[in-house]
Amino acid sequence: MIDDTTAHLPTGDALLTDAVFQGARTVGRFVDDSVPDALLRAVHDTVRWGPTAANSGPLRLLVVRSREARERLAVHMDEHNRERVLGAPVTLVVAADTDFHRHLPTLAPHAPTMGERLAGVPDVRAAMARDNAWLQTGYLVVGLRAVGLGVGPMTGMDAAGVDAEFFAGTGWHALAVLNVGWPDGEGTDRPRAPRLAWDEVAREV
Amino acid sequence: MIDDTTAHLPTGDALLTDAVFQGARTVGRFVDDSVPDALLRAVHDTVRWGPTAANSGPLRLLVVRSREARERLAVHMDEHNRERVLGAPVTLVVAADTDFHRHLPTLAPHAPTMGERLAGVPDVRAAMARDNAWLQTGYLVVGLRAVGLGVGPMTGMDAAGVDAEFFAGTGWHALAVLNVGWPDGEGTDRPRAPRLAWDEVAREV
Repeated sequence: MIDDTTAHLPTGDALLTDAVFQGARTVGRFVDDSVPDALLRAVHDTVRWGPTAANSGPLRLLVVRSREARERLAVHMDEHNRERVLGAPVTLVVAADTDFHRHLPTLAPHAPTMGERLAGVPDVRAAMARDNAWLQTGYLVVGLRAVGLGVGPMTGMDAAGVDAEFFAGTGWHALAVLNVGWPDGEGTDRPRAPRLAWDEVAREV
Repeated sequence: MIDDTTAHLPTGDALLTDAVFQGARTVGRFVDDSVPDALLRAVHDTVRWGPTAANSGPLRLLVVRSREARERLAVHMDEHNRERVLGAPVTLVVAADTDFHRHLPTLAPHAPTMGERLAGVPDVRAAMARDNAWLQTGYLVVGLRAVGLGVGPMTGMDAAGVDAEFFAGTGWHALAVLNVGWPDGEGTDRPRAPRLAWDEVAREV
């Protein structure tokens, strides 16, 4: 599956423009092929190298595949998102781990006291976890699309309900849900919406 | 500069692994070449197509080039980050625009009432702006690295001070500062820090 799918992908600049950014759409319609666990691992092995503050890397993933797990997740989604969770080849719950500081002795050997300092400031950790897990979600979307997968990100859900359902007793907090699979055609019938231009988002000082 | 720099970049899978993720480092040491405005625009023209919630696209950028502007920014950075801001070829202040909803009639024609609904809930807007601007910062780091630029992201600063200095009277709020330029060698002398493995960050339910 990995070789078959990536063989026809564009390369070089076109990889980013065609497969990842301009040419990619938010996908709601998938073909009926499963997404191998090995491919998700391979994508993670690539995107995990993206930079985060203090190399905190707080992104966590819940992989939802079974019918039972989909149903447990779907009840916490906004109504219009339920069928999407029930129908996607695989669904990832993207979460931020507020206990990421426990890994800092390994991840940030250049800052040996940071884990201890963060242990006493849960509010700082919560904000740092959320910000950096969203940053890593950007890397993840890029990595999934770069191997030809389609991604349908959704935030319309009761995130506290998802946390209680799956993450009780952990520091994980749900940020978003990504439906993932091989797109059926463009994966959507909705016309491409515009984006703001450089002069609307940037100014020089 | 654009052609010279991208000509030797890897292509295909290697673009992501070598130039963007595994092979790239957080850069603190740059060669003394300037980064053309046209290249920053070209990167933005690519990465702006990345998905955000409701196509809100709240990321905003302040481009800091002049000595005077660098000094105004540097005083709000943590002490160990000041020289980096003063010395980088170009520095981008990455911000989230809490007034992003004003653009939704253009950006989200599929949800014609969303802009109005968000106008009344500034707290919801603030969280949505922050989350999605961080997500877009992930796309931006990828896009900058993909054209061969080095990026040195920093969050050690008085963000409220930066807001007061540059963004008074706007809905922009500083999230991070990216030093950007052509890396001098690897751009750093620090050994590569490890990352968590799939089995440490993901579980299946």
